[in-house]
Amino acid sequence: MLKFDKLSLNIPETTKPRVVVIGGGFGGINLVKKLKNKGFQIVMFDKQNYHGFWPLLYQVATAGLEPDAIAEPLRKLFDEDYDDFHFRLVRVTGVDPARKVVTTLIGELHYDYLVISTGTKANFFGNEQVQKFSFPLKTIPEALNLRSQLLQSFEQASITRDPVAQESLLNFVIVGGGPTGVEVAGSIAEMRKHVLPGDYPGLDFSRMKIYLIEGLDRVLPPMSPEASKKTHEYLEKMGILIRLNTLVENYDGETVTLKGGEQIRTQTVIWAAGVTGALIDGLPKEVVARGGRLLVDRYNQVEGFPGLFAIGDIALMKTDKYPNGHPGLAQPAIQQGQHLAKNLVRMVRNEKPEEFEYFDKGSLAIIGRSRAVADLPGNVHMGGFLAWVTWLFVHIYYLVGFRSKLIVLSNWAYRLFTYERGTRLIIRPFVRKDDKEAQEFVMKNELG
Amino acid sequence: MLKFDKLSLNIPETTKPRVVVIGGGFGGINLVKKLKNKGFQIVMFDKQNYHGFWPLLYQVATAGLEPDAIAEPLRKLFDEDYDDFHFRLVRVTGVDPARKVVTTLIGELHYDYLVISTGTKANFFGNEQVQKFSFPLKTIPEALNLRSQLLQSFEQASITRDPVAQESLLNFVIVGGGPTGVEVAGSIAEMRKHVLPGDYPGLDFSRMKIYLIEGLDRVLPPMSPEASKKTHEYLEKMGILIRLNTLVENYDGETVTLKGGEQIRTQTVIWAAGVTGALIDGLPKEVVARGGRLLVDRYNQVEGFPGLFAIGDIALMKTDKYPNGHPGLAQPAIQQGQHLAKNLVRMVRNEKPEEFEYFDKGSLAIIGRSRAVADLPGNVHMGGFLAWVTWLFVHIYYLVGFRSKLIVLSNWAYRLFTYERGTRLIIRPFVRKDDKEAQEFVMKNELG
Repeated sequence: MLKFDKLSLNIPETTKPRVVVIGGGFGGINLVKKLKNKGFQIVMFDKQNYHGFWPLLYQVATAGLEPDAIAEPLRKLFDEDYDDFHFRLVRVTGVDPARKVVTTLIGELHYDYLVISTGTKANFFGNEQVQKFSFPLKTIPEALNLRSQLLQSFEQASITRDPVAQESLLNFVIVGGGPTGVEVAGSIAEMRKHVLPGDYPGLDFSRMKIYLIEGLDRVLPPMSPEASKKTHEYLEKMGILIRLNTLVENYDGETVTLKGGEQIRTQTVIWAAGVTGALIDGLPKEVVARGGRLLVDRYNQVEGFPGLFAIGDIALMKTDKYPNGHPGLAQPAIQQGQHLAKNLVRMVRNEKPEEFEYFDKGSLAIIGRSRAVADLPGNVHMGGFLAWVTWLFVHIYYLVGFRSKLIVLSNWAYRLFTYERGTRLIIRPFVRKDDKEAQEFVMKNELG
Repeated sequence: MLKFDKLSLNIPETTKPRVVVIGGGFGGINLVKKLKNKGFQIVMFDKQNYHGFWPLLYQVATAGLEPDAIAEPLRKLFDEDYDDFHFRLVRVTGVDPARKVVTTLIGELHYDYLVISTGTKANFFGNEQVQKFSFPLKTIPEALNLRSQLLQSFEQASITRDPVAQESLLNFVIVGGGPTGVEVAGSIAEMRKHVLPGDYPGLDFSRMKIYLIEGLDRVLPPMSPEASKKTHEYLEKMGILIRLNTLVENYDGETVTLKGGEQIRTQTVIWAAGVTGALIDGLPKEVVARGGRLLVDRYNQVEGFPGLFAIGDIALMKTDKYPNGHPGLAQPAIQQGQHLAKNLVRMVRNEKPEEFEYFDKGSLAIIGRSRAVADLPGNVHMGGFLAWVTWLFVHIYYLVGFRSKLIVLSNWAYRLFTYERGTRLIIRPFVRKDDKEAQEFVMKNELG
């Protein structure tokens, strides 16, 4: 790797209006697709060189899919067919709306239009202990860490005779009963039923416990009460221990303490309890609203800053239909990206931009191998296998690349018929950075 | 992760003869398959929880395949159908043939039969500088490191204006003209031709150089002179710069110095120049031969140690046909594993064991997307597309799991028709452990 002083952004000078996009998520990539060869210079920054299909990230964590099945290189998405498109694998450190400049570690860049589509990050609500010891599930490396942790737990449980230690290895606590929490819990329960007893004949899996902790009074709070009820039934049938109206007070790496006093000894706490906007320095506090989101008008413009836009999860747009903003799903981000692209074209043509209106295509969550719940537009609710098949096709349809679709589909077809989980590989053992003894164990063992 | 004092091997006591197998490579897994439910207790140790199909590892390094396509979890291979089989993810630290005991970090274990099938590791011939700065290609984490390094090089080359730095990022030096070196060089040349110009329209790929350095007088020295000649032609046609009769004197992380004086500025040296046996402490020096291999008799028994065996790459068996031992391929390991299993059954029945004889099925190497060379039994040599198709089917046939075969086949079919490389994801950026500035760059950028 080069030293900083040899690096610069290397963006060609241009007379075209320059659109800078921060973040290659659903919003960012759909904006760029719609802006293709429309007379703009487009610069995209991301800290990863790929677009991830995050609704399937839990599958990577639970050894169902490999990363390439849910991710597509951004440079492959935006290849030489895109005139004057420039991807830069570098973090944006700040924005100066007064000068219309974004800053990075290797230089700054002037923009005509800036689109912030950075999405969200895990929210630990200020609890540093929990942040230190629990497993978030927002990125591919985090998913791979969690996968290693899950598999290591069973390996370690196989080589201990200490019953207390074994209990703590076989307890899994998932905090947050939203789609991610529900899907992870369901996946782990499937592993317990169909895969683990064959892999670890020496372990007694009746002693393995899966807890799902939710602060509100039902699972899947963003979905309909009907979906919540069905999901609750499915989860209980799979033997998942659900705690509603329950908050996590602390986790010290050994024991989770719930508000109310219950304690669960566990090595693995999966944190899916909340997100907050992945903000960029330089924006005034008054545009930052609840949940670290940027207040935007109906044109996705950050209020009071011409030329500065936010789309997707990081944006908070209040409309009559959605007075608290849009749900944190792929669809609002996709639609806002496409809509803003059209508006940018209108703006440079001095046409009037149009207000954004969200078209609800429904929402879905999967519970285990062949059950799902769906809320469809028009107050229609589905459950069971039919919802699962719907979920399957919706997700595969929106997966970006042809190749990814093929791989995911063949993986699922295979698993549907065999109950098999494909990829139980511990490629890089997970070790906490400050756990010297675990590091020593891995090093001395030359594991991974 | 648990503390050491809470761990123990947890192998049940038994009255059956206990076979301890160290290493789940081609030799180890074929031994266990043949020993299945034959009245032995089998204990397998490995540092990884998977069996890897190493002939395809270069595909993982060059973004052609994901790890799950070339690896199969050992616990999945040897599931509950295997009576009294015990896998332990732990490193064997030593062997005491006098007491018939293997030692690990978490306890020791008595064996009746011990099979060492640990294979080989990269040999740097004592050059610590080269070892520190170059990329070996023997494990999946190493392949993923190399993949990140390759992709990072192009990302970095895109953000520097320093022509010397860019040259060093776009030079790739592969040391060792055996199958791995040839296959890696061919793969990188394919990327340069078909993938990279589309991904990096701002870079001039006529300036990218691929060097292949070989110490002997031809590439693929273990294969026939005909195969070497064809391979040499193919490689030159792909624009690979070949240096024969050339040794690497040093590499300081910036510049490779060849014996004879030529210097090549590069950030990436791939080390495929040699291997040495992955030995275990406790064996006397007199049984260790050239290349760190264990001298075995025709029954794969380590000479002078009843009950102690070595198979595959770590074993050196001299026969009339193979006075210098067998080639370091999958086939001798597979055959020795199967043969030894049958002999172990004979031994416990007090029958006479049989001598091992290698049945040569030929050898193959691939050069790029659709060309290969093959030496078949009976002095038959093939080249071109026909050899490539042969290579394809041979490799897929020997891939262990049904699922792996399916994934690899569909990946290849897809790539054959599209020239596409699937998985150009930088999941975890590669940073040398002692390169503080690069670490700072990754950390500050929050990359990966």
